Amino acid sequence: MKISQKIQQSTKEGKVWWSFEYFPPRTAQGLQNLLDRIERMRGLGPEFIDITWNAGGRTSDLTTELVKTCQSTIGIETCMHLTCTNMPSEKVDIALREAKLSGCRNILALRGDPPAGKDDWEAVEGGFEHGVDLVRYIRKEYGNYFDIAVAGYPQTHTLPPEERAQEMTYLKEKVEAGADFIFTQMFYDGDMFIDWAHTVRAAGITVPIVPGIMPIQTWNGFLRAATAVAKTIIPQSYLDALEPYKNNDEKVREIGTKLVADMCRKILAAPIGVQGLHFYTMNLERGTRLLLEELHLVPRIETLKPLPWRQSLTPARRSETIRPIFWANRTKSYLSRTEDWDEYPNGRFGDSRSPAYGELDGYGVSLKQTREDAIKLWGHPTTFKEITDLFEKFCLNQLSALPWSDQPVLSETSVIAQQLARINRLGFLTINSQPAVNGERSDDKTFGWGPSNGYVYQKAYLEFFASPELLDALIPHIERDTGITYYITNRRGDLRTNTTSEGPNAVTWGVFPGKEVIQPTIVEAISFMAWKDEAYELGHQWAKVYEPGSPSRKIISDIVDNALLVNIVQNDFHSPDNIFEPFFKLEEEFSTRRTITANDHALITNGHAN
Amino acid sequence: MKISQKIQQSTKEGKVWWSFEYFPPRTAQGLQNLLDRIERMRGLGPEFIDITWNAGGRTSDLTTELVKTCQSTIGIETCMHLTCTNMPSEKVDIALREAKLSGCRNILALRGDPPAGKDDWEAVEGGFEHGVDLVRYIRKEYGNYFDIAVAGYPQTHTLPPEERAQEMTYLKEKVEAGADFIFTQMFYDGDMFIDWAHTVRAAGITVPIVPGIMPIQTWNGFLRAATAVAKTIIPQSYLDALEPYKNNDEKVREIGTKLVADMCRKILAAPIGVQGLHFYTMNLERGTRLLLEELHLVPRIETLKPLPWRQSLTPARRSETIRPIFWANRTKSYLSRTEDWDEYPNGRFGDSRSPAYGELDGYGVSLKQTREDAIKLWGHPTTFKEITDLFEKFCLNQLSALPWSDQPVLSETSVIAQQLARINRLGFLTINSQPAVNGERSDDKTFGWGPSNGYVYQKAYLEFFASPELLDALIPHIERDTGITYYITNRRGDLRTNTTSEGPNAVTWGVFPGKEVIQPTIVEAISFMAWKDEAYELGHQWAKVYEPGSPSRKIISDIVDNALLVNIVQNDFHSPDNIFEPFFKLEEEFSTRRTITANDHALITNGHAN
Repeated sequence: MKISQKIQQSTKEGKVWWSFEYFPPRTAQGLQNLLDRIERMRGLGPEFIDITWNAGGRTSDLTTELVKTCQSTIGIETCMHLTCTNMPSEKVDIALREAKLSGCRNILALRGDPPAGKDDWEAVEGGFEHGVDLVRYIRKEYGNYFDIAVAGYPQTHTLPPEERAQEMTYLKEKVEAGADFIFTQMFYDGDMFIDWAHTVRAAGITVPIVPGIMPIQTWNGFLRAATAVAKTIIPQSYLDALEPYKNNDEKVREIGTKLVADMCRKILAAPIGVQGLHFYTMNLERGTRLLLEELHLVPRIETLKPLPWRQSLTPARRSETIRPIFWANRTKSYLSRTEDWDEYPNGRFGDSRSPAYGELDGYGVSLKQTREDAIKLWGHPTTFKEITDLFEKFCLNQLSALPWSDQPVLSETSVIAQQLARINRLGFLTINSQPAVNGERSDDKTFGWGPSNGYVYQKAYLEFFASPELLDALIPHIERDTGITYYITNRRGDLRTNTTSEGPNAVTWGVFPGKEVIQPTIVEAISFMAWKDEAYELGHQWAKVYEPGSPSRKIISDIVDNALLVNIVQNDFHSPDNIFEPFFKLEEEFSTRRTITANDHALITNGHAN
Repeated sequence: MKISQKIQQSTKEGKVWWSFEYFPPRTAQGLQNLLDRIERMRGLGPEFIDITWNAGGRTSDLTTELVKTCQSTIGIETCMHLTCTNMPSEKVDIALREAKLSGCRNILALRGDPPAGKDDWEAVEGGFEHGVDLVRYIRKEYGNYFDIAVAGYPQTHTLPPEERAQEMTYLKEKVEAGADFIFTQMFYDGDMFIDWAHTVRAAGITVPIVPGIMPIQTWNGFLRAATAVAKTIIPQSYLDALEPYKNNDEKVREIGTKLVADMCRKILAAPIGVQGLHFYTMNLERGTRLLLEELHLVPRIETLKPLPWRQSLTPARRSETIRPIFWANRTKSYLSRTEDWDEYPNGRFGDSRSPAYGELDGYGVSLKQTREDAIKLWGHPTTFKEITDLFEKFCLNQLSALPWSDQPVLSETSVIAQQLARINRLGFLTINSQPAVNGERSDDKTFGWGPSNGYVYQKAYLEFFASPELLDALIPHIERDTGITYYITNRRGDLRTNTTSEGPNAVTWGVFPGKEVIQPTIVEAISFMAWKDEAYELGHQWAKVYEPGSPSRKIISDIVDNALLVNIVQNDFHSPDNIFEPFFKLEEEFSTRRTITANDHALITNGHAN
């Protein structure tokens, strides 16, 4: 969605909005950290994020890559910076084309800083000289496809009057060339900004102005801002208030947050039509979060979770409303394996699903963890009991990841954490689950999603690996419950099911005012069979963390090779505990036997390891 | 669906099944009565029905027409008889083509009786001589598209042995030519039938045998069977048991039912693989119903109501799973206005709906009632109060039809009958409604539909005509409830709504084991606007029942011309009474005013008549 539409909507609703700016990090680890952070900071409710363009070209591919990941995997509207520095028009073309492919509709067109090692700015051959040239070029080549933002420089009051007038003329030119709104450079003087904004309006510029706000995080960081290229002017009052505490980061942040918040409040109250704040996060979370808290700006729940899973914002996927549950903890893999689909399911899974899931090789299955991390997390298990212990801990949120899940268990899982732990102790290695939900309100903190005043539902779901012997003991208990449907497969893909209907089973759905029933998560055979390869492969990747011939590699390989992959749905969503009953019956069956035979013992505690 | 599939399914489940045979009546009124009866007798759970072919051609178009109506409007699987009598192959072709277009997959191929006025059977030029010729022809021309049934004659034990053998040879020929099963002629001697069935099996014929059963309804009717063309042999025991009561129809039916039921039980128990009974209903209901009761044969709920509305079985419509609520009481009109659609919505209304509803003129809107019937039903109302009285009575099930509904109110409406009556008294003329349902079991007698072990839901719905003044008074009360969405239109089509989402609103949906959420009824703007013309036109048809210039015609015309057509949905299905609150608040507002002004008075009691 274009930022101008979001601004329009917020204006209509009379709501203050905010956005976050990030820059491409220099290392792969830095990139991963940043993505995790963007993901997390999404919870703070930015209307969009903004990725800077690094002069020099080496990191510009990274900008493109970051924009793509933010749009598709994180599913957040993204604005891409584009500078003229070292950019001949072919490079600009490539950048714009890639942005468009990622579904990005917003470009901040900048002249940019001089290239590294040079003091003065100069255009490359075949490149652009001024921001306005870039604006014109984008409008000419892409019509109204992109929203175009341009930079505004509020710190002009120290300039001689002619230069100030010249700056305003440049700004006006850029707007007349087609810019939709203005992001300003950072500043710490609210009055100066307001003055400048009045001048902008007086010059006949009517597009929205978005002030750039830099949270104060530490004394040194704060001072750096003043000495950077843009040379931010720091009011004496800031220095007076902060300097006494310059060795106390905590205090600097506290006072700094109040100072910047006061400035924001002043700006928002001034009659200059400013309703949005653009935060220069410096890729950090804390300062921005504190500032938002101080300003009492809380995210609009509704816009945060239109579906129970994160929607992708690439053009073809925007209408996607249904996914299989299997990749719930492997979104990136799902996106990758389905990215060549011509159409994405919208409303029904059966209708528009393309025939094939991309091959595993196309994406490559790998653990997110390095070898060291993996060993730190999971140790060197050598018995089945040690394996089930890991799964149990994960369910109880005492372990932050498993090979099948990069993330700790979801908060919604906590309501069934004890039950899950118990069935893992029994030897059923759970890799995915969701509790039953019978019409919670759509704004419920744990289970809610979708528009207000709706009701959301889930059928209880469990997916696990189990040895054939253990499963044989369980199945009679499962068959006794007519509400349960299951799919069982081995590694080779021999499928067993008790379902009679051919179509998918909706396991998450929501009922909302004035809408069709939305059913974003389903269980069905074809995608389960595609997922199966990935699920087994993840187990093998785990085994490979350990040396060939080592006991850990052997036991994990054995378990994965022999295990069946099972998913079960309890279709009666009125009774949240029903799905566990067959397991607990089995547990009872085991425990009430007078003597536990050697075979039982192997079954329960050591099934795969002998 | 082919009958052979149904037989197979019943065999697998070890269940006895039954079917009903009807013949085309001679008059238009008779036809209407028969359709009503078929519709009603559907509740007795026949797996399919069977329409005879009348020799002579005049009524054969009627057979085709009946098959079409049964398949499409009533939505019941139908078998069509086809005889060789007076049927050159072109006529056979037409009949088969029409049957196929109607979605009929079952043909009973018969030689037929001699044409009227002739004693001996003879083939027409270019026609077929024997049943077997017809079977061969259908197989040749249509491959396996149709199931083909042929007739069996169990009453062969009185024939000389050579003729008996000859009959068996004919039967075997027909089966070898491609017949899928055998319907027998009626008989009253169970032992004879069982003997014959053994002979059939001994002859190597393995297809299912379906005995033809004729309920005994009256003494005369019973005797007529014995003297008809087929000359049914009547066992002495039947005569002995029935003759003493020959003037007592009640007693004949009672004893006759027991006799035939005993015979059926004997046949079903015999080791001849008979699991289905084909009832010759003679277009009557009672005898068949009594016989089923005596046999304790109750319909399988599940197969009766796969959706809350009756599915059409024509080929293109078989996948249709969503309809707008507006034509709930006008199914035939909806089918007719949409019969040219290329695709029918399946799963989502938005996805596959064709762009246009057929013009009203294509079908023609008319009251089902004749002028006399209409006046008998609705009298000569001359005041607004008399009009609201009619609507009120209809809601309370004291009036069997309104121009907008041929049928009395549905049983599910009874839970809101009092509330509906009350808002009609207020001057809101309701023409459609449904109560809220929050997860009743799918086998619930009143609200249930769809497969077992599911839950069904409804949002409360109301549709009514109201004067602009009355509506103006209501709207503020409606707007106060954020759960209500509405559409309002005048006759010209100026639409007003408070909905913000563009798509349809699902107002009936069901959640079932192993399936996607099914949402068979929706409310949305485009279809509402198409329905609007029909709704107004029905009012005008009512007005036209009365003489031009008469007070009744004038008041009805005035009301309809001035009224707005309104539909409202209470989206919060947890609170069934919420939808009526705005009306009751308005009622209170009126009643608490100290003095009722002339204007109020006009509004409440006489709004449209002055």
